[in-house]
Amino acid sequence: MANESAQLWGGRFTEKTDPLMAVFNRSFPLGKIMYREDLKGTAAYVTALYESGILTAIELDEINRGLRLVLAEWESGTFLEKFEDEDIHTANERRLTEIIGSLGGKVHTGRSRNDQVATDMRLYTLDHLEKMRQLLKFLIQTIIHRARDEIHVLMPGYTHLQRAQPIRWAHLLSSYATQLTDDLQRLEMATDITNRCPLGAGALAGNPFQIDRRALADQLGFAQVIGNSLMATGDRGFITDTLYLGFSISSHLSRMAEDLILYSSAEFAFLKLSEAYSTGSSLMPQKVNPDSLELLRGKCGRIFGNMAGFMMTVKGLPSNYNKDLTEDKRVLFDTLSTVESSLQIATGVVSTLSINKENMKNALSSDMLATDLADYLVLKGVPFRECHHIIGRVVKAADALGYGGIDVLSLEELQNIDPRFVEDVHDVFDFESSVERRSAIGGTAKNSILDQLNLIENKILYM
Amino acid sequence: MANESAQLWGGRFTEKTDPLMAVFNRSFPLGKIMYREDLKGTAAYVTALYESGILTAIELDEINRGLRLVLAEWESGTFLEKFEDEDIHTANERRLTEIIGSLGGKVHTGRSRNDQVATDMRLYTLDHLEKMRQLLKFLIQTIIHRARDEIHVLMPGYTHLQRAQPIRWAHLLSSYATQLTDDLQRLEMATDITNRCPLGAGALAGNPFQIDRRALADQLGFAQVIGNSLMATGDRGFITDTLYLGFSISSHLSRMAEDLILYSSAEFAFLKLSEAYSTGSSLMPQKVNPDSLELLRGKCGRIFGNMAGFMMTVKGLPSNYNKDLTEDKRVLFDTLSTVESSLQIATGVVSTLSINKENMKNALSSDMLATDLADYLVLKGVPFRECHHIIGRVVKAADALGYGGIDVLSLEELQNIDPRFVEDVHDVFDFESSVERRSAIGGTAKNSILDQLNLIENKILYM
Amino acid sequence: MANESAQLWGGRFTEKTDPLMAVFNRSFPLGKIMYREDLKGTAAYVTALYESGILTAIELDEINRGLRLVLAEWESGTFLEKFEDEDIHTANERRLTEIIGSLGGKVHTGRSRNDQVATDMRLYTLDHLEKMRQLLKFLIQTIIHRARDEIHVLMPGYTHLQRAQPIRWAHLLSSYATQLTDDLQRLEMATDITNRCPLGAGALAGNPFQIDRRALADQLGFAQVIGNSLMATGDRGFITDTLYLGFSISSHLSRMAEDLILYSSAEFAFLKLSEAYSTGSSLMPQKVNPDSLELLRGKCGRIFGNMAGFMMTVKGLPSNYNKDLTEDKRVLFDTLSTVESSLQIATGVVSTLSINKENMKNALSSDMLATDLADYLVLKGVPFRECHHIIGRVVKAADALGYGGIDVLSLEELQNIDPRFVEDVHDVFDFESSVERRSAIGGTAKNSILDQLNLIENKILYM
Amino acid sequence: MANESAQLWGGRFTEKTDPLMAVFNRSFPLGKIMYREDLKGTAAYVTALYESGILTAIELDEINRGLRLVLAEWESGTFLEKFEDEDIHTANERRLTEIIGSLGGKVHTGRSRNDQVATDMRLYTLDHLEKMRQLLKFLIQTIIHRARDEIHVLMPGYTHLQRAQPIRWAHLLSSYATQLTDDLQRLEMATDITNRCPLGAGALAGNPFQIDRRALADQLGFAQVIGNSLMATGDRGFITDTLYLGFSISSHLSRMAEDLILYSSAEFAFLKLSEAYSTGSSLMPQKVNPDSLELLRGKCGRIFGNMAGFMMTVKGLPSNYNKDLTEDKRVLFDTLSTVESSLQIATGVVSTLSINKENMKNALSSDMLATDLADYLVLKGVPFRECHHIIGRVVKAADALGYGGIDVLSLEELQNIDPRFVEDVHDVFDFESSVERRSAIGGTAKNSILDQLNLIENKILYM
Repeated sequence: MANESAQLWGGRFTEKTDPLMAVFNRSFPLGKIMYREDLKGTAAYVTALYESGILTAIELDEINRGLRLVLAEWESGTFLEKFEDEDIHTANERRLTEIIGSLGGKVHTGRSRNDQVATDMRLYTLDHLEKMRQLLKFLIQTIIHRARDEIHVLMPGYTHLQRAQPIRWAHLLSSYATQLTDDLQRLEMATDITNRCPLGAGALAGNPFQIDRRALADQLGFAQVIGNSLMATGDRGFITDTLYLGFSISSHLSRMAEDLILYSSAEFAFLKLSEAYSTGSSLMPQKVNPDSLELLRGKCGRIFGNMAGFMMTVKGLPSNYNKDLTEDKRVLFDTLSTVESSLQIATGVVSTLSINKENMKNALSSDMLATDLADYLVLKGVPFRECHHIIGRVVKAADALGYGGIDVLSLEELQNIDPRFVEDVHDVFDFESSVERRSAIGGTAKNSILDQLNLIENKILYM
Repeated sequence: MANESAQLWGGRFTEKTDPLMAVFNRSFPLGKIMYREDLKGTAAYVTALYESGILTAIELDEINRGLRLVLAEWESGTFLEKFEDEDIHTANERRLTEIIGSLGGKVHTGRSRNDQVATDMRLYTLDHLEKMRQLLKFLIQTIIHRARDEIHVLMPGYTHLQRAQPIRWAHLLSSYATQLTDDLQRLEMATDITNRCPLGAGALAGNPFQIDRRALADQLGFAQVIGNSLMATGDRGFITDTLYLGFSISSHLSRMAEDLILYSSAEFAFLKLSEAYSTGSSLMPQKVNPDSLELLRGKCGRIFGNMAGFMMTVKGLPSNYNKDLTEDKRVLFDTLSTVESSLQIATGVVSTLSINKENMKNALSSDMLATDLADYLVLKGVPFRECHHIIGRVVKAADALGYGGIDVLSLEELQNIDPRFVEDVHDVFDFESSVERRSAIGGTAKNSILDQLNLIENKILYM
Repeated sequence: MANESAQLWGGRFTEKTDPLMAVFNRSFPLGKIMYREDLKGTAAYVTALYESGILTAIELDEINRGLRLVLAEWESGTFLEKFEDEDIHTANERRLTEIIGSLGGKVHTGRSRNDQVATDMRLYTLDHLEKMRQLLKFLIQTIIHRARDEIHVLMPGYTHLQRAQPIRWAHLLSSYATQLTDDLQRLEMATDITNRCPLGAGALAGNPFQIDRRALADQLGFAQVIGNSLMATGDRGFITDTLYLGFSISSHLSRMAEDLILYSSAEFAFLKLSEAYSTGSSLMPQKVNPDSLELLRGKCGRIFGNMAGFMMTVKGLPSNYNKDLTEDKRVLFDTLSTVESSLQIATGVVSTLSINKENMKNALSSDMLATDLADYLVLKGVPFRECHHIIGRVVKAADALGYGGIDVLSLEELQNIDPRFVEDVHDVFDFESSVERRSAIGGTAKNSILDQLNLIENKILYM
Repeated sequence: MANESAQLWGGRFTEKTDPLMAVFNRSFPLGKIMYREDLKGTAAYVTALYESGILTAIELDEINRGLRLVLAEWESGTFLEKFEDEDIHTANERRLTEIIGSLGGKVHTGRSRNDQVATDMRLYTLDHLEKMRQLLKFLIQTIIHRARDEIHVLMPGYTHLQRAQPIRWAHLLSSYATQLTDDLQRLEMATDITNRCPLGAGALAGNPFQIDRRALADQLGFAQVIGNSLMATGDRGFITDTLYLGFSISSHLSRMAEDLILYSSAEFAFLKLSEAYSTGSSLMPQKVNPDSLELLRGKCGRIFGNMAGFMMTVKGLPSNYNKDLTEDKRVLFDTLSTVESSLQIATGVVSTLSINKENMKNALSSDMLATDLADYLVLKGVPFRECHHIIGRVVKAADALGYGGIDVLSLEELQNIDPRFVEDVHDVFDFESSVERRSAIGGTAKNSILDQLNLIENKILYM
């Protein structure tokens, strides 16, 4: 009766087929990017089937020959896709069977698309984590190189986007490198979690043919075997880890981008992007826009959305495989490629921008030494909280007198505010001395920064 | 110096070009989906330029001839894309100029890609909101039709996934229709906000050629003109509204999908999906999986991720146009098409599934009438809270006696618990009577449900 | 056996009680904020019970007397909370029964905490939407007032954070007002969806006592009755609508805050926050930080998180009430109060900041008139695209000659680039004329802005 | 003029004070939870100041005496809070100075609230990560204990919520333990990133008093020193790591909760929660609701929202400290306490629930052995793909004959479908044999599961 009604009110729907459903259900357009991983997984699996006695040596050879031919078709762009290819696994097995005949039907013995797709996804992810690792290291090295080159350049350090204290430009660069080094560590962690072999877990319950899962893992280059078959096919923690890693990197790039966008505005004018990373306006002929940086910043939202969306997809799912999990592909592939591009663009931007040292220097104002002036009194024994109040009065006095800065106040004027100011007070008003005074670990002194850079370089050497 | 260094440490980077940057920056692969809207916007704009005296009638005719040719190329699939086509606006103007010569260079007079893209996006969105509106109405009508057809079918109503009280299957269907009717209202709101013309706002500051923006809006079919040029080019509220609408619909579908997945499990066995919306297992020959429903549920995460990601992109941006905003395309286009497909699949599923009335009926157990039994005592004047305790004892007594349900207890046994039970008590134990007793607005009685369905049908008639 | 084991391996766990579970399960600490709405709902409900013949007139009076006493205890702070009060409904009924005896046990007749909490939440939300509406209007009016007062002030308009074209400061203010007016419309929509009465829907299946739900809605001031009892108790669309509204407002405030933070930096120096909305530094005596604006910007993330989290909670839930839904309270209450505070702080900031017209004016540079120069040639009949290239050459020439701007070029120098420049060209270089030329709807001309402001004022008059 | 206007249109706003701003800006109500960490940080810092020669031994002693008194006041609940206490740092220094006089003003020497709050937050987080580690281990051990106890119990394994293959109940439990063991590893990573000392970084630029940051870290128990002062005060990666960890755990719990909610429904009836973790209904006397599990599932959204919201807050912020970062407290504290409670509740639920072995067993149907039947033919040499089709026909035949399952088919009937079925075929139809056949790593065989459990136990021993 439902069907009769269906025809009455739907028309489009019959028992057998809804073409839209085929499209809705098809992961092939996305999944085919993993053709190599899929064939690699099958090659390892048939070896294991041979070891278990399911395949003969001759069958194994023939299947391997077929797999190589399928691979060659993909690599040469001659693989003919069919609409019936629901996913990359089906497509590869379909083609293999066309080439080697019904023997192709043996490769799925004891295997399911559930463990197969988990294997493909992990192999693919590992490949890209490795690529990302190299790009991340290269960006860090680029930043460090630049920091060493320009260590003599001073600029304002900001908090709340207000000028706070003088720092070295290299100190800011070093903070970028430090954050990204943390991301390298996160990448190692994501890699470790991903680097585990699900193959041989079947659809959910494991493998009934005494398959050697340790050997499978070895052949595919996995460090470990996933120890529970339900988890192997139903968990996507390695994907959320990777998506989170992508967010962490992208979020650090978004903050760096924000800095550099500000610094390349006419108002700051601390630096200029290379033409390669800027674009013009279709209406305003004079414009040079930092599009590369805006994209780095904007794409952080995209990377986040990929992660957040997939997290929602997995929340509250029953254990084991559910079709919802197929949503992992779109977001994972996009995050990997977007983060890889972002790292490369960031490297390009950082290595080609030119800074304007004069403008950076001119932006240093003597009020940024107010803390140094307080520290001066501290060293005379005044409690810091009191110094803070005294310097507050100094700042106001300079203002009231219409002076350009606190360094213009005469010793007498300073002593009127507090008699503990003595002749050496004007030594405070030197930006270079100020940054050099901060020589503890992590500070702005030249040696402190060089130490930081060396430390990072050594740390990432084996990462 | 930076550049020398760049070569030292970068190699890849020169002042003039980074091919990856071109890819990173290019919105054309996504944006070209709006070729028609872009040409339509230009056609309207050149009319306005003619009215303002910027173009002659002959120029206008020639440009319109060119625009028609460009459109024809797109429609016939012969438009030749070039890598230099950074976006759809550039591509169309480039092609127009190839066809009609330098006159093509006049169409951008007083216009910017900033107001142009906002116009294209709004036109495109309106088109799809209209499509979504129709699909939503069709789904609601399908549900209502089914509800009317099967209004006699009883089933358990659940809260906390525990059997609670008997309801009609049509009552559950009606709740889906009610929720989706709210979404129709949300759609009207999103449409209203989107239906405003940004064209003529320039890059940010407005139009200097006394363009008639009211006429522009009319020609493009917009209901209103956006009253501030900064807002017209820099705000993306219409996109977050649309993305939120998509989430709301998708979230309602995810809950319906969850119900139907549960009901099609072997344990519930209330219904069976049509084959068209199920798929098999590659390993387990007996499996019939409700993939369509799992995809409906899983894609709710994707729709959410699109929204969440773009929200992050806009958060904290400076006013007016920033390149970050170009991230709107990917998420908007994906959400529109995913929600449209989802509505169609949901309609297909609902109209072709077959229910198992017997199983639904057999799942009704007498303990689901415990509230009715309490209500029985209420009508004898017992305070509800006391009834609740009494019935608690009834439930326990039936359990202790090993009875299958509370309806097995004899009158004497009931009276031992509370003497206010009298002979008519066994009339309570009828599921049909129970649902009919709930005859207030929104209840499970047949007439109450028919009223609901009529109300919805009338409400959506003009939506 | 499980229990024996439990003692072996758990110890803490017995069959009867886990004190942590009571805490985990208790919504009272949050829910009690709705004591008034809860009592109001009960008062309406008992009237309806009386109309249905469930209560006598005497009982009704006695219950109402009790309800008034409970309310009085809450208002005077003398309501004694007990740990057993799992939620506000239980607490109020417990106290009522202490006061009027077992008659109190009648108020829950035919009612469930499911329809009760939905009623409380909707009443509470409506109250706060009304408050938010007033605060939003007040902020818009404050912005408009300021825009009118300072309509003569020019400043750079930015895109990509690069100086683009001159605008009026009032034009930027007007864009804020325009965006917030859209939010007022979103607020109306959220109000409309919320303004529907769930009371009388029972736990899920409706009311068996012929309760008059229309009268209930009227007494509680709801505009409509929710037409399906499952939806009434299980849907939380009104909450996601309200959370989304909060995000939309907060996101607009975050962008305004970003602008004002930039403009109050030393580099822009366009404005100064009042002391009331700035704070100092504990270390750096000279600092004045725009904390209020940073909080407005930062809290956008919080508002988003409230929304995103609850969306995840509802995704994929089975229909009808599930305990997961109790998570609505924390996020809704926090969003309402945070948005209300944010609107007030934003109003305070906008109404008390002082602008520096001189700095705004000095930031206008002649290259911002490059588009005007192109438009000059347009009016001489040159296709815009060609003008764009010519002006590109003008900008470069001025650079090459070391001039401070394109306005320094002599007529001869301009004519060397293109002979179509004639004597009137220097009229272009006037910022006031530039903004006045943009006189179409939405533009920067004085009258255009005044029109915008009037339009908004009229629009919000009845919102 | 702005101020005059302010009075005209605001009234509430004066130059000096907005009481709402004080509330908006105040982190004290949240931050005071870290009173101990804050005092501990100060104690370490003054030792370092003494080592640097800023404080004398006598001053150090006096300050330490004061700090101990302040601590004692907090511990005994006698610390008097003042509205002027903007944050916990200010409050503690204020109180210290009241006790020991102006000497208290020395503790902030060279320190900023920026490095102070980062120190407090990291100490507090480490403490709770340690607590979470223990709770996570305890939950894993509880699950393992239960799995060992009930290893003989068979049940259906599901994919797509359809019965797929028989598994052991212990196998499902083991999958939970495996996932949570991954979370233990994530926790180690988050701990490693958090376990780094920011103290001595000042507001942004480092410390000018040759403070020994290595010694500071040692005294506070940090494993490392953060190597860049900007990063130390401005990065919140350790917080997003912790929030992500919380999500990962909570997401695993949400999936386990979903399983157990399903299994405790009347339809599955595999298990019953202990009363301690269930609650009743206010309307329906017979209901027993799995509230504990629904809360575990629902709170996953809350934990996600905390993470997502803070991620939005940090996105695109300029480097170094911005006030937006103060939003870290609310979400971090809530996530830590919610995850801790969730782990405890989950432990309670798992250790006290009782399973119904009979129902689990009865839910096994012979169609779940279809894959085993295919595997039977595989071992006869039939390619798996062909087996899959044959068994498809077997399933249909049994259906068509109205048999309850495929095991009812006679040998003859089977041979009619495929002659390769021989007498031993009926050995396939044994659920125990089926699970025992899956004896490869990760499979359902008893020994395979015991291996998994042992492995996990050994792995977590030193975690």
